Amino acid sequence: MAQEKLLFCPNSSQIDSTFWGSFCKLKLDVLGLNEEPLPISGQYGANEIPNINPVISVDHSSFDTAANPYSGMIKVPGLLINTNTAEQFKQLDKNELMVSMGSALLGKLWSEDGLKEITKTPSILGSFYILTFADLKKYKFIYWFAFPAVTAISVERLGPSEPVLEYFKNCTQVKSVFSSSKETLSAGFFIVNKSETGQDVSVKSLESIDEASKSLENVIFGFIDPSSLEEPGWVLRNYLTFIIRKLKLKSGTVITMMAHRPKRASQLEKGYIFRVKVEFEEGFEANPKFVGWERNVKGAFGPRQVDLQMSMNPEKLAESSVDLNLKLMKWRLFPDFNLEAMHQTKCLILGAGTLGCNVARCLMGWGIRNIVFVDNGKVSYSNPARQSLYTFQDCIDGGRNKSQAAAENLKSIFPGMNTSHKQIMIPMPGHPTSEATISEVKKDYETLVQEVQDCDVMFLLLDTRESRWLPTVLGQKYGKIVINAALGFDSYLVMRHGPGSGNPNVSEISKTLGCYFCTDVVAPGDSTRDRTLDQQCTVTRPGVSMIAGALAVEMMAALLHHPEKNCAKASNSEPEACSPLGIIPHSIRGFLSSGQTIMPSFQPFDKCTACSEKIIQEYDSRGFEFVLDVLNEPADYLEKLTGLNLLKDDFDSDGIVELSDSEDDHQSVNAE
Amino acid sequence: MAQEKLLFCPNSSQIDSTFWGSFCKLKLDVLGLNEEPLPISGQYGANEIPNINPVISVDHSSFDTAANPYSGMIKVPGLLINTNTAEQFKQLDKNELMVSMGSALLGKLWSEDGLKEITKTPSILGSFYILTFADLKKYKFIYWFAFPAVTAISVERLGPSEPVLEYFKNCTQVKSVFSSSKETLSAGFFIVNKSETGQDVSVKSLESIDEASKSLENVIFGFIDPSSLEEPGWVLRNYLTFIIRKLKLKSGTVITMMAHRPKRASQLEKGYIFRVKVEFEEGFEANPKFVGWERNVKGAFGPRQVDLQMSMNPEKLAESSVDLNLKLMKWRLFPDFNLEAMHQTKCLILGAGTLGCNVARCLMGWGIRNIVFVDNGKVSYSNPARQSLYTFQDCIDGGRNKSQAAAENLKSIFPGMNTSHKQIMIPMPGHPTSEATISEVKKDYETLVQEVQDCDVMFLLLDTRESRWLPTVLGQKYGKIVINAALGFDSYLVMRHGPGSGNPNVSEISKTLGCYFCTDVVAPGDSTRDRTLDQQCTVTRPGVSMIAGALAVEMMAALLHHPEKNCAKASNSEPEACSPLGIIPHSIRGFLSSGQTIMPSFQPFDKCTACSEKIIQEYDSRGFEFVLDVLNEPADYLEKLTGLNLLKDDFDSDGIVELSDSEDDHQSVNAE
Repeated sequence: MAQEKLLFCPNSSQIDSTFWGSFCKLKLDVLGLNEEPLPISGQYGANEIPNINPVISVDHSSFDTAANPYSGMIKVPGLLINTNTAEQFKQLDKNELMVSMGSALLGKLWSEDGLKEITKTPSILGSFYILTFADLKKYKFIYWFAFPAVTAISVERLGPSEPVLEYFKNCTQVKSVFSSSKETLSAGFFIVNKSETGQDVSVKSLESIDEASKSLENVIFGFIDPSSLEEPGWVLRNYLTFIIRKLKLKSGTVITMMAHRPKRASQLEKGYIFRVKVEFEEGFEANPKFVGWERNVKGAFGPRQVDLQMSMNPEKLAESSVDLNLKLMKWRLFPDFNLEAMHQTKCLILGAGTLGCNVARCLMGWGIRNIVFVDNGKVSYSNPARQSLYTFQDCIDGGRNKSQAAAENLKSIFPGMNTSHKQIMIPMPGHPTSEATISEVKKDYETLVQEVQDCDVMFLLLDTRESRWLPTVLGQKYGKIVINAALGFDSYLVMRHGPGSGNPNVSEISKTLGCYFCTDVVAPGDSTRDRTLDQQCTVTRPGVSMIAGALAVEMMAALLHHPEKNCAKASNSEPEACSPLGIIPHSIRGFLSSGQTIMPSFQPFDKCTACSEKIIQEYDSRGFEFVLDVLNEPADYLEKLTGLNLLKDDFDSDGIVELSDSEDDHQSVNAE
Repeated sequence: MAQEKLLFCPNSSQIDSTFWGSFCKLKLDVLGLNEEPLPISGQYGANEIPNINPVISVDHSSFDTAANPYSGMIKVPGLLINTNTAEQFKQLDKNELMVSMGSALLGKLWSEDGLKEITKTPSILGSFYILTFADLKKYKFIYWFAFPAVTAISVERLGPSEPVLEYFKNCTQVKSVFSSSKETLSAGFFIVNKSETGQDVSVKSLESIDEASKSLENVIFGFIDPSSLEEPGWVLRNYLTFIIRKLKLKSGTVITMMAHRPKRASQLEKGYIFRVKVEFEEGFEANPKFVGWERNVKGAFGPRQVDLQMSMNPEKLAESSVDLNLKLMKWRLFPDFNLEAMHQTKCLILGAGTLGCNVARCLMGWGIRNIVFVDNGKVSYSNPARQSLYTFQDCIDGGRNKSQAAAENLKSIFPGMNTSHKQIMIPMPGHPTSEATISEVKKDYETLVQEVQDCDVMFLLLDTRESRWLPTVLGQKYGKIVINAALGFDSYLVMRHGPGSGNPNVSEISKTLGCYFCTDVVAPGDSTRDRTLDQQCTVTRPGVSMIAGALAVEMMAALLHHPEKNCAKASNSEPEACSPLGIIPHSIRGFLSSGQTIMPSFQPFDKCTACSEKIIQEYDSRGFEFVLDVLNEPADYLEKLTGLNLLKDDFDSDGIVELSDSEDDHQSVNAE
């Protein structure tokens, strides 16, 4: 009888780009630096296209181990071994890995229980693994598939293969038998029993292998063959090992195999039957060896590479890239990082000058997506050099509206930003209304109230003290996180306001921090009337705004990660109140010329012209009417209302000089 | 005889836009907040155009009090009173100002010496002043001209005026007399003597007024009349006062005047002669009063406004606007500021990542105009959110070259920047060359050497430790200011290298500061081989880079203003070595989580692998060959060369842990 070595057609991997997409997400969000092999799944099936290797494919569903396979496909288990560096990928001992992964995936072949489990889930025999290195930053992937197969058995084919229909030509029922055994066949491995005459044929699941194989002459070991070349597919190798182990065959035994090659599982036309003699050394299971690394496109045993960047939607790409740096924080340095909270947080930026621009950029860096800009100015030629959201083009022809330019330019940096803008003038004490302006003032007021209500965090980055008054009142009333920053020539102030009465988390104990106006001995009024050019222009050392803007955002990030949010105590003095990002002081004052920073905290002032109970009550009961009075009444209106005027004479100003924003101080601590 | 009150045709001011241009420059560069009245000059002349008021014009030459008037024009002295705020302008007492300015400009009328001076410089009689408020930020100007005239005298005209040529009809020589008296006439005021018959006429300078006026009947007081209306020009008012005072005339005296209206000074056709009776109260000079505010376009006594922004070249406008904030510093807060030095300084930025972008922006804010970017990367989608010179557009289609995008985008922010870029890979220890790459490496090396030689300040903002090695050696060799910044997750290092041996100012005493590598116990090598994604990506809190970038630039600004430049001692420990901008520490390490900064300084290390004498000597003698050895030899090559390897065993690592950039530290202090 003709006898020749049986060859197996090796598997060919097929990776859908959705596989990498899902893996990137999983890696960034869940796995981090974890290098444990990750259970995944692949699929194979009979191949309609002639003359191609068996294909094992993976896609996004590979990470959902509970997902059903696609119609007509067989789902096989796999493992993904991702290294964190390209170097590791390179240096990993590939032989060692094949042994350990082969054993991990096919170890069930060596025990009775395991073999029994395979009869129930025969797709284990098609197991695979992938060694990968994912450069998530560049969307480049190095990967190497392996389809481990036990190497112990040498297989000879005895005589020529016979087409299935010819082999079963005596059985008129054969088509209907197979056609009605869809379910059984779909496992990928099955048993065919035939009578000696070949007139009767039955298809059984692998679970009945022991019973069905009592007479080896009458049993055919069937499998869905994913190969469409002459040779059967790679999966047959482990199937033969399984049959030998399960039936405890002796070396030299001859068995009959059926390579089932249906287009659909019931069609028999393309399958064939063949007999093989299996030879092996007894006891090979004691020290099993595996082969199965896939060859790369050059035909060598080596990894493949794929660069997905070019094929991705640029805006999507930008979005995932921007989140990348942030998600990486979670891996090691900041495991408590809540990126989702950042994505959801709505920030209101009042003032789109140097501070507003720097704060917006730093917010974007932290993953903040929702920003509303409020400003009333236009971009002037002196702005772009220090106001980092504008360019020369924004200045031409009188200048674009600042809030709009800031909102739009931020989107042009990163299209994933959700920005909007309000070109309004914030009503200010000492800036009276007139008949002509009152309706405009009211409209601006209402817009501001709406924006404060809608936001989670408000940044006060305005260029006068009085413009901060109404936002401070509103922040207090609606219990928002309020971060305040102001600049001097070579100094800065960054502070958070104490939690407002409108904050649901406010308890008496947490109301220990004051607002920007709590240290004032005079009410805010028109400070712009008599300022010389160098006082108007916020003449500062350029670095000051970058530092203050950065600290303001970092303070917010720390607050958002503190369980008590803006009720958090000033944790430089109370270390047990730290956030996962460290201390959250009440205020930071920095001085460039001496290199010093101080972090004073101070209590709410019961006569504060912005956040005291009296003010909030008055605002609660009279709303816009009260605001109008503040705008139009003489400068001491707020002082009389709070009783601040009574204190003025005997106020010990020495005690507060460090923190005061009094007139003198104001000249050196302008704001922008 | 017909008698009627003589009217005077008021002056009309004409301001060329070059006047404001020169004033802005003077204000910003020289005057600052100085509000002293500023001597300027104006011009007037006979008017060719019929029926218009006398015009007094000012332009850029008005600020050069030594400049000659334009041909045919008379130069008159003026004062410019600029207020620093619009409010001051508004609130200034205009009557009081008229008295004080009138006295300042025309006070010479009240003394014999003064009157004598006027005979020599009669244009004093045409004096004027301008009250201004200049909004240099918006190129808007409020201004109000005044032409003070003494009001004491009431003037009646006796009989009709007579055309000059008719009046002198008996004198055949009259034309030639005037034609030959050009010089005398050009003073604007002159004396005409005629014989009784009118046959002889002579023209004399005002200096001979006493002599010439002995017989009032035969003297005519002439003046070039800038009016082309029927009435004589405003300047006649002060002329009459002068004549009265100089000749000690009695009230009621009648004198003859000649309004000379030449197109050119010798033409007599349009002039006329008239007689006036002057009446006044004796002793009016004891309490002189003045009038003369110009009416505005609405015809009211009030200021005029001009907005020059629209008429200016946008790029020029941007340039002067950007300098504005900086020049304003000189006014009050930083009088020693040397903007010109900033304009001239050439900065080399190595690494165009988050730090490179922030540093470049801050440099632009300080008035630095010359920046060269060096980077080898492309802009990727994750960059723009934190790297403030790039936008989404720069990432598309594989990304623009970073150094080029940075250089071009900086110019699009401010066209006045002079930027260039080098897309090179900096040769690095531990990154060997091959046959194939060596010519490329050499080219890159030579480019780097050239750029270091050409720059004044070098910023090391690279993302690995080893990439800083060669620039450090070159900075040392060529004696450049070297500022180094590196980032950790929530910490940063900003430092300056000690002055290099190539620095001409280096004396032994000033070589007290080390470089980035002076605290190392291992030579730099390939640190990128085995970094996981979160270590490659410089995972940092976004604020860290803004703070470090700002501090790096502020450190440079302070150094450039220190008399000893980069030889300045670490002035946090030696306060007497402060710059006008305050302390200049050797290094700053900041920690966001604790809010702390420390400013350690350390000495040069004689076994330093970058700046020690041994290294510089080796580089001096072997150049690129030495660099090649560093790249290609084993990691301990530099250690053996400096003797660092001998020290390694008994090194007390506890002592340097705070400052070390050792392997462990490197993982948390990455760089970008």
